[in-house]
Amino acid sequence: MTTVLKLGGSVITRKNTPETVDSDALARAAAALAQSTDQLVVVHGGGSFGHHHAAAYGVSTTAGTHDDEAVRAIHRAMKELNANVIAALSDAGLSAVPVHPLSAAHRTADGTLRFSTDTIAAMLAEGFVPVLHGDVITHEHEGATILSGDELVVSLAATLTADRVGVCSAVPGVYDTDGNVIDRIDSFDDVVEAVGESDATDVTGGMAGKVRALLSLDAPVVIFDLERLDSFIDGENPGTTIR
Amino acid sequence: MTTVLKLGGSVITRKNTPETVDSDALARAAAALAQSTDQLVVVHGGGSFGHHHAAAYGVSTTAGTHDDEAVRAIHRAMKELNANVIAALSDAGLSAVPVHPLSAAHRTADGTLRFSTDTIAAMLAEGFVPVLHGDVITHEHEGATILSGDELVVSLAATLTADRVGVCSAVPGVYDTDGNVIDRIDSFDDVVEAVGESDATDVTGGMAGKVRALLSLDAPVVIFDLERLDSFIDGENPGTTIR
Repeated sequence: MTTVLKLGGSVITRKNTPETVDSDALARAAAALAQSTDQLVVVHGGGSFGHHHAAAYGVSTTAGTHDDEAVRAIHRAMKELNANVIAALSDAGLSAVPVHPLSAAHRTADGTLRFSTDTIAAMLAEGFVPVLHGDVITHEHEGATILSGDELVVSLAATLTADRVGVCSAVPGVYDTDGNVIDRIDSFDDVVEAVGESDATDVTGGMAGKVRALLSLDAPVVIFDLERLDSFIDGENPGTTIR
Repeated sequence: MTTVLKLGGSVITRKNTPETVDSDALARAAAALAQSTDQLVVVHGGGSFGHHHAAAYGVSTTAGTHDDEAVRAIHRAMKELNANVIAALSDAGLSAVPVHPLSAAHRTADGTLRFSTDTIAAMLAEGFVPVLHGDVITHEHEGATILSGDELVVSLAATLTADRVGVCSAVPGVYDTDGNVIDRIDSFDDVVEAVGESDATDVTGGMAGKVRALLSLDAPVVIFDLERLDSFIDGENPGTTIR
């Protein structure tokens, strides 16, 4: 059983203080993940590490840069956050090893993500827990653009044919127009009023783009907050289930 | 024109002091590389960073480990050396970006290296200089084994159809039995007396294994020392040429 688990950047970092880990939240997440008996693939977002640099250099998922200093700065910050996540997961007893998307993935000229995940499948088979992250990656003709943690989750879940996908976010699920968490989403039409139209550029955190991308997966996707990560790992479906 | 350039670990580190960069040698190498007008792919060895940890955990190119702590320790040390190399190359004006083999490569059960180099080709096309290193990588059924810088050079030169390959080593070339540098090697028989039989396990630095692997390439391979890196970058063939 393969589970792809996303830890939101806003869950594990202090979003308003540059490059600051929320160590308590991270340790709590790690303790919950350590209870899993599945083959786990962990993906984390950028939080206060990646977004700051990406914004400073004007790089997004579609606006590229050929400035190698920008690539190094964004990537360096994300590797630093990744090292913190790896340390917390290994302290909790998981066989965590890092996978850095800049090394393994790129986009073709039309923006299509190319990520050969054979290496990740081999890691899982050997009992390692690959830990990936949002990153800056090479983009044909554009130099380099941002790969969001959410896009990575969708790509990995599809190519690894994951059985379950969990998205641990800062909110307990997708809210309806009355502010209640929606239990189940079967189509984008169900929630368009609540989450708004999705914008093509809105792939690094916006709920509408996230829901639309997650709806494309075969595996059920569960969106929940840190309070309910234990419950998800136990096999339950807290928060909002998308399928 | 694509050139794959190896910087030997013993050239850029102080081999007898754990995790110590030879900053002068590294700066000199970087200044020479910055004069290149080719599409450069840089690979560096482990020197006093990787070998120490690999030996401590008993991991080699064939003896694997499932100890995730070993994987993290070896990989962390190699990424630290890589960060030093990236800094020196970018200070010299090269658009250097890191590529970490653990993220992108693995071995099948019979030891065959699988490395999808499309991402590296995309980096070259965008004007970036990918900088790779010897590393620990996933190995089917073995956990993880060492990928040497030399093996990486051979693999990259073949899959990227490099025009030239340079190996900047601690010695000025391959010596004959009289201690003179051999100008040209066309077959392993030419040098078997001088370098000895190659041993299957001798792929992380031994000259015999290095020569045998480099002979398999279509591109000419030039082995020289740091004194002659400028000359190689100028298009000359100092030291020993293997083809």
